[in-house]
Amino acid sequence: MTGSKITGFSVHDIRFPTNVSGDGTDAMNKECDYSAAYIEIHTDGDLKGQGMTFTIGRGNDIVMYAIEAVANRIVGMEVETIFGDIGAFWTFLVGDPQHRWLGPEKGVIHLATAAVNNAVWDMFAKARGKPLWKLIVDFTPEEMVKAAAFRYITDALTPEEALKMLKEKEAGKKQREEEVKKIGYPAYTTSVGWLGYSDEKVRRLTKEALNQGFNHFKLKVGADVEDDLRRGRLIRSIIDDPANMPAGRKIDPATIQGKNAGPTGCVLMVDANQVWDVPQAIEYMKKLEPLKVWFIEEPTAPDDAVGHAAIRKALKPLNIGVATGEHAHNRMVFKQLLQLDAIDVTQIDSCRVSGINELLAIMLMSAKFGKPVCPHAGGVGLCEYVIHLSLIDYIAISGDMTRNVLEFVDHLHEHFKYPCSINPQGRYNVPLDPKEGYSIEMFEESMKEFAFPGGTYWVAAAAGNAPKPKHRGIED
Amino acid sequence: MTGSKITGFSVHDIRFPTNVSGDGTDAMNKECDYSAAYIEIHTDGDLKGQGMTFTIGRGNDIVMYAIEAVANRIVGMEVETIFGDIGAFWTFLVGDPQHRWLGPEKGVIHLATAAVNNAVWDMFAKARGKPLWKLIVDFTPEEMVKAAAFRYITDALTPEEALKMLKEKEAGKKQREEEVKKIGYPAYTTSVGWLGYSDEKVRRLTKEALNQGFNHFKLKVGADVEDDLRRGRLIRSIIDDPANMPAGRKIDPATIQGKNAGPTGCVLMVDANQVWDVPQAIEYMKKLEPLKVWFIEEPTAPDDAVGHAAIRKALKPLNIGVATGEHAHNRMVFKQLLQLDAIDVTQIDSCRVSGINELLAIMLMSAKFGKPVCPHAGGVGLCEYVIHLSLIDYIAISGDMTRNVLEFVDHLHEHFKYPCSINPQGRYNVPLDPKEGYSIEMFEESMKEFAFPGGTYWVAAAAGNAPKPKHRGIED
Repeated sequence: MTGSKITGFSVHDIRFPTNVSGDGTDAMNKECDYSAAYIEIHTDGDLKGQGMTFTIGRGNDIVMYAIEAVANRIVGMEVETIFGDIGAFWTFLVGDPQHRWLGPEKGVIHLATAAVNNAVWDMFAKARGKPLWKLIVDFTPEEMVKAAAFRYITDALTPEEALKMLKEKEAGKKQREEEVKKIGYPAYTTSVGWLGYSDEKVRRLTKEALNQGFNHFKLKVGADVEDDLRRGRLIRSIIDDPANMPAGRKIDPATIQGKNAGPTGCVLMVDANQVWDVPQAIEYMKKLEPLKVWFIEEPTAPDDAVGHAAIRKALKPLNIGVATGEHAHNRMVFKQLLQLDAIDVTQIDSCRVSGINELLAIMLMSAKFGKPVCPHAGGVGLCEYVIHLSLIDYIAISGDMTRNVLEFVDHLHEHFKYPCSINPQGRYNVPLDPKEGYSIEMFEESMKEFAFPGGTYWVAAAAGNAPKPKHRGIED
Repeated sequence: MTGSKITGFSVHDIRFPTNVSGDGTDAMNKECDYSAAYIEIHTDGDLKGQGMTFTIGRGNDIVMYAIEAVANRIVGMEVETIFGDIGAFWTFLVGDPQHRWLGPEKGVIHLATAAVNNAVWDMFAKARGKPLWKLIVDFTPEEMVKAAAFRYITDALTPEEALKMLKEKEAGKKQREEEVKKIGYPAYTTSVGWLGYSDEKVRRLTKEALNQGFNHFKLKVGADVEDDLRRGRLIRSIIDDPANMPAGRKIDPATIQGKNAGPTGCVLMVDANQVWDVPQAIEYMKKLEPLKVWFIEEPTAPDDAVGHAAIRKALKPLNIGVATGEHAHNRMVFKQLLQLDAIDVTQIDSCRVSGINELLAIMLMSAKFGKPVCPHAGGVGLCEYVIHLSLIDYIAISGDMTRNVLEFVDHLHEHFKYPCSINPQGRYNVPLDPKEGYSIEMFEESMKEFAFPGGTYWVAAAAGNAPKPKHRGIED
């Protein structure tokens, strides 16, 4: 695909009616229509870039409106000028003083910047005929440093330190690329433990997940401690029972080090989605100690690095770790989480921060501070996105995937032209199509059906004739 | 004014062409059209509520669009139900899970929440026939605690602690109210030192400010160290010269304790508007040591509590303090700034966080941690707003105004029905009109002229016939 100049763009408000089945419910987010604020950037050739950011329904239009404002600033730019110094492009993108006032670098304007920036990187990868991860792992260390967003984080990591780190990893890149192509990237499943699910459904899904090869399971908690203990024990009773293990299953002991794994090597994590204050989080998690979890995810407000550090310190004696990041709104929050030793796991999101440039900086910081990167996924499109990030992290940055697991939720992949997929060992396959870019292109039919409010589904729903959604992975 | 039910609202995109004169320019924000995303809430009676949030131009429409989404949720509510438990109302306002995803509690959605919440408090005050500050200082300690937003900050301050603090201040409230009505609330001026101003203009404005009674002056820095030193020395040479002091001027030595004051008792502060990384901030400020400033404001990213703590520690031996807060997006950021002892001064903004409920919590935390509250003002409408906040802080919360100064910029007040004003001692007068609520009602003529893009000014500007703006305080 080729093109020389950005000529325009279209934005789309796409909402999937996930609210009907309890998928995606947690202690904070009780009603979710997984949605994409989606942009397609056009050029004077056949080169296009697709990007999106994720919301859970209402307000997707506000983000779309902000995407228009951000994208208007890049119309008319030469694509090779952008690709020639994509670090400078990111600086330009976040640098409009008037838009910056609306954040700075957070909330709606930053979500919008993410969609636009991701679309430009998608276009960059397609122009070079590579999936996005491959475009970036083929960068020289100098190119990667030039692309990364160091502003405001040099007290934690300087470009010079980053360059040194990347150079040390250069030699093994080819071998790691071959390895991960062969065995896939480690994944965990969140699909078994949403709050809206019955015990029977949790039981069935847990067994299915074991048979799909998963050995890391995440449970949503925080609404009721007794309920959480019951559901957690239910999952543990299944995943700790050797009789339930699929034939030929092997777990490398190195991958479960420090993860509070049970007798079969299976690991349980819990996620509170920010429902607690700091003292509450500590008290509540002490009660969940019997579940022997690897980490508590999002125990409190995502902005509160000091609070996460206090929680982690208090739970350390119980061997419970802390994870957060899906709502950490920029690299400065991650910097503080790392500087205060507040987390065991860095959970980046593909479109909460301002896209690839900022994510490179965050992955570099995580590597320096020795924390594994385990991206947030699920929702819609996020799994398609994050496999690229984890591949970049493993092949070019951290050089390690023993402690990492990438979230997987089997929802809504059928709407994407290049959907992510899981191999029989419960690991992400590596995206390989030279045309897939950042893998986020949606089918036109899906967009026509789920455009809000004018798509065929929503028009029917408004008339009281909503068809039963046919999402793969969404069950009765 | 009376009314029983919220029946609707109107939103307005009001932009003032301040970009033409260099007012409001600093090292980060080089072009500013001071703007208000403004809402008027209607009831079935004559009771109305006005509220706004402040932006610097482009993107004001995005906030307006978000205000509509937030305000739609309160149409139909009974006003006495809201006023009866305004803490619960705030929880409702920030509690929509789908809107929350767009922050949480930050950026555009939080700015919009601020406008709506401030408008409701304005309506509350008008319904009770009191200016807003008076409504709140007349609350019992229990009512104030019930109104304040404690979620996510109880590791720093519990409602019980806050109640105890407020009760200890009860006895002196009446006396403090009388005192501040008589002498006014301490102010400082930022009008003398914007980056776009010539030395001659800085000189003239500094002398004028001295004659207006000011003894605290703020200079914008960060673009060029030599330039900053020259302009800072220029201001110091004027404010340190006893010959320039107006007749009868008296400064209470208690008010300049720890402020690096010069021989005449005048105090200089500098403001970098987030241009530096942490190491840069330290290095740059060491060079500005000769200016003997009280504090450096916004030395780095506003989210970076850890960074501010490092800067404060490094500059302490030079007797330079640190201030921040106008872009601190919620109470969790202030909590961390206080917990890490990262600031000397808490600079709250009236519409960056989600309005009065959250500001009460922040002022209570500041009082507990012993930091003076010096709100951010300027822009448009902010001075009208913040005098209320400082009065609440002084009369009911901290009980102290010796170390405090409230920012004052003499721009755009003529557009407000109840403009703030400064007495001959350079102090804010106390708003007293029982009909003024939160003092933010704009004149209809101003709104018609500066509505964007359809107001008479902007239509003329688009046609190339922009009239010369007639802002009071904006000079050639």
